[in-house]
Amino acid sequence: MLMKASSQSLTEQLAARFGERIRNRLMVPGARLPSVRQCAQQHGVSPSTVVAAYDQLLAQGLVEARKNRGFFVREAAPVRVEEAPPSVPGETFANGFSTMHFLAARRAQAPVNATALIRGMFHKISNKPQPGMGVLPPEWMESTFMSAAVRKVTSTRALHDFSLKYGEPMGDPALRRALAQKLAGINVPAAPEQIITTVGATHALDIVSRTMLRPGDPVMVEEPGWAVEFARLDALGMRMLPVPRRADGPDLDVMAKYCELHKPKLYVSVSVLHNPTSYCLTPGSAHRILQLANKHDFHIVEDDTYSHIAPAHAPRLCALDGLQRTIYVSGFAKILAPNWRIGYLAAPTSLVEQLLDTKLLATLTTPALLERALALCIEQGQFRRHAERIRTKLDAARSRSVKLAMNAGCEFVAEPAGLFGWVDTGVDTDALAQRMLDEGYLLAPGALFHAERKPSTLMRINFATTQEAGFWKKFGEVRRKM
Amino acid sequence: MLMKASSQSLTEQLAARFGERIRNRLMVPGARLPSVRQCAQQHGVSPSTVVAAYDQLLAQGLVEARKNRGFFVREAAPVRVEEAPPSVPGETFANGFSTMHFLAARRAQAPVNATALIRGMFHKISNKPQPGMGVLPPEWMESTFMSAAVRKVTSTRALHDFSLKYGEPMGDPALRRALAQKLAGINVPAAPEQIITTVGATHALDIVSRTMLRPGDPVMVEEPGWAVEFARLDALGMRMLPVPRRADGPDLDVMAKYCELHKPKLYVSVSVLHNPTSYCLTPGSAHRILQLANKHDFHIVEDDTYSHIAPAHAPRLCALDGLQRTIYVSGFAKILAPNWRIGYLAAPTSLVEQLLDTKLLATLTTPALLERALALCIEQGQFRRHAERIRTKLDAARSRSVKLAMNAGCEFVAEPAGLFGWVDTGVDTDALAQRMLDEGYLLAPGALFHAERKPSTLMRINFATTQEAGFWKKFGEVRRKM
Repeated sequence: MLMKASSQSLTEQLAARFGERIRNRLMVPGARLPSVRQCAQQHGVSPSTVVAAYDQLLAQGLVEARKNRGFFVREAAPVRVEEAPPSVPGETFANGFSTMHFLAARRAQAPVNATALIRGMFHKISNKPQPGMGVLPPEWMESTFMSAAVRKVTSTRALHDFSLKYGEPMGDPALRRALAQKLAGINVPAAPEQIITTVGATHALDIVSRTMLRPGDPVMVEEPGWAVEFARLDALGMRMLPVPRRADGPDLDVMAKYCELHKPKLYVSVSVLHNPTSYCLTPGSAHRILQLANKHDFHIVEDDTYSHIAPAHAPRLCALDGLQRTIYVSGFAKILAPNWRIGYLAAPTSLVEQLLDTKLLATLTTPALLERALALCIEQGQFRRHAERIRTKLDAARSRSVKLAMNAGCEFVAEPAGLFGWVDTGVDTDALAQRMLDEGYLLAPGALFHAERKPSTLMRINFATTQEAGFWKKFGEVRRKM
Repeated sequence: MLMKASSQSLTEQLAARFGERIRNRLMVPGARLPSVRQCAQQHGVSPSTVVAAYDQLLAQGLVEARKNRGFFVREAAPVRVEEAPPSVPGETFANGFSTMHFLAARRAQAPVNATALIRGMFHKISNKPQPGMGVLPPEWMESTFMSAAVRKVTSTRALHDFSLKYGEPMGDPALRRALAQKLAGINVPAAPEQIITTVGATHALDIVSRTMLRPGDPVMVEEPGWAVEFARLDALGMRMLPVPRRADGPDLDVMAKYCELHKPKLYVSVSVLHNPTSYCLTPGSAHRILQLANKHDFHIVEDDTYSHIAPAHAPRLCALDGLQRTIYVSGFAKILAPNWRIGYLAAPTSLVEQLLDTKLLATLTTPALLERALALCIEQGQFRRHAERIRTKLDAARSRSVKLAMNAGCEFVAEPAGLFGWVDTGVDTDALAQRMLDEGYLLAPGALFHAERKPSTLMRINFATTQEAGFWKKFGEVRRKM
């Protein structure tokens, strides 16, 4: 809200608001500012105030004017020299998407957009629950058992054991034993010697990419998909091949085509509770993916980040395959302690040494103190009960949230499940997200989950943070005005 | 020692010993096994026992026989397909080293060799102090203040604050403030907003490489130098240009030549207490490096890992340059708590956002709990006193160790300083290292610090772990027999 009584003029306040949003990447380079008329109306100021504010932003180098088109957020000048993308045949598939088109778009925009979402995770927008967040609210994760576990591993003697030596390269042995047991529970056969702990699942995915791929290698990703994965692969110089993700699994025809044309080395999949759709792979689809992998000799990294809130008996590729050409990745950020940064991977024995080398080159070891504390939480059954409580709570939240969303005019594109809903709002969600920011809400617009970042009416909602009528009321108001 | 009374035959014992060493990479691929005669003599067994043991290793696929040349450790079959090295002009410099030669050698061997040293850090060879280690013995680092600091940050309330949210992307603010003050003490002007915490200095160097370089980019490294840095750059696909490191600094003529021929984007330097020589850069040399960097427009990452034990007033490139085209990297693994994995970088303001993006893509955040505990240790002055104690203790250890080394026939190639001595043993240190392993000692042979891994009579010793006459006596015995 702009304030007339402020020591800053309305122009300064308006310029400062846009400036902060641009610097925080809540408005990404290339994004269009509202028209002068729209902006004046929205903020209840005169058009000349808006023009003056936009002039200030121009003078600060934050925006640029494009003739007859309005004002746009400027692209930040990159320090590193961008090189030409690797040459790729620009074939177009029957379903109309072209890798060439995709790659061109990706080079130009993806890194910025993806980091925008990550940055958004860390900006305190307001005290309201944030519908666009990718995690549970901290208060959901509160527990007493974590502090008890930490106290045990930080007695003076234990603290020295877990601090003064580098620790095991593979990760804390007690945690790896506990993880092997957990994996056995979902039929993924991994010995502790096949498990490597990492700085969150993010780091595990990074290690897998760096080990399995060389710059320029083709890699299949899911679309819609997790923007951070796109950005990481892009930063590593990989060629991404987006595979449409359907309710039952990836589009196998597209995958087969990619295999013939590009011989991809890796397929990155969130098979269970896929982000953003919450789709789960069917057993039949899993089987056919593995057949394809065998035929065309590619590996699969299965990102099971949402395993703790997944339905019982959801089939994993790693379970069917028995970790032959699959690598399992998961972590605890979504359920217990995001900032402990504990993730892990489980890999075929033949790949473990190479993956471990990559971990050692990137970070050496990982903090055993936190790993051992987590091991205690798992061994003593507290973690399992904690996860059950969260699932129950999330089920209730989802019911409420789904009703509220539908009442507010949203349509669920995918069957509601897990943490995320994938909904059609009927309006452009990039623009909607900007308007809702003014109200103190961070949304996750659909464009963020698409490699091409084309306008979308879809958005991802977090069921844990969209149970309140207040948000949906405001959402409805803003949406109606668009 | 092989034992006749064992339930295993002498052949099995001998094969098992070599097998373990090969699997643990204490004998690297391509290394030659002792001749049958040598081996028989060394272990007091008959030549037929050795032949039978080598046959077992052959059958296990661990070694290969080369006609008329003996037995060699087999190269592990790489899973990923190695691609041809990027084409580089194979010019030879006046001083006789060729980048082409270097690159060919590096492609074939460096990754394995470098990880051999890292892996060695983690193998329990024996209970003896290990001369080849790169860190202080754990008992040197024991303290009471660490547990007090950890208790403060793990009270139930604090634990939740430092666990249930992802934390600040840049790292714990209290730690970054403390680090800014520490840096001011060595004349490096860094605001907390220019500091990013990382998973050890290793991770900081990784982030810098990934942000500043694209695969195939030329980067200047120091030779001799830290093998893990070579391996990381190699794994990222960079073209390394080795600059000879002298007592006063890098060979500026070679650097200038590289600049003209290759336009390197980055120079990676351990300017103070260089590893393995413990050389410190002179102010004059620092000035000329920065002049060269300005002229040829490259950045410098200054790895100040040994800052805590460095002589007062040692000049840093980052101090002279004022963090304009320099990035400062350091950490706490060498002085306080290796397994807390806390490192950091301080960068020019213009680079901070990009470096932060790379951190977020690689690991998201880092554990604030440990960072805040470290901040407390620094703020309350305990860390400074701890570092002083360590320096005093290390000075005494160095005096003893230098005398013992010289009595044992070693010659110091570089003036003894810091944690490491760089000595000439007069014999091939690769072979010496294998023989000393039989006695329970891990050495760091000179070849590990050279990109080309050519045979060397040099080795790096750790002053903290070579104060005992027992080691030097054994060293003298083994050396005399070579």
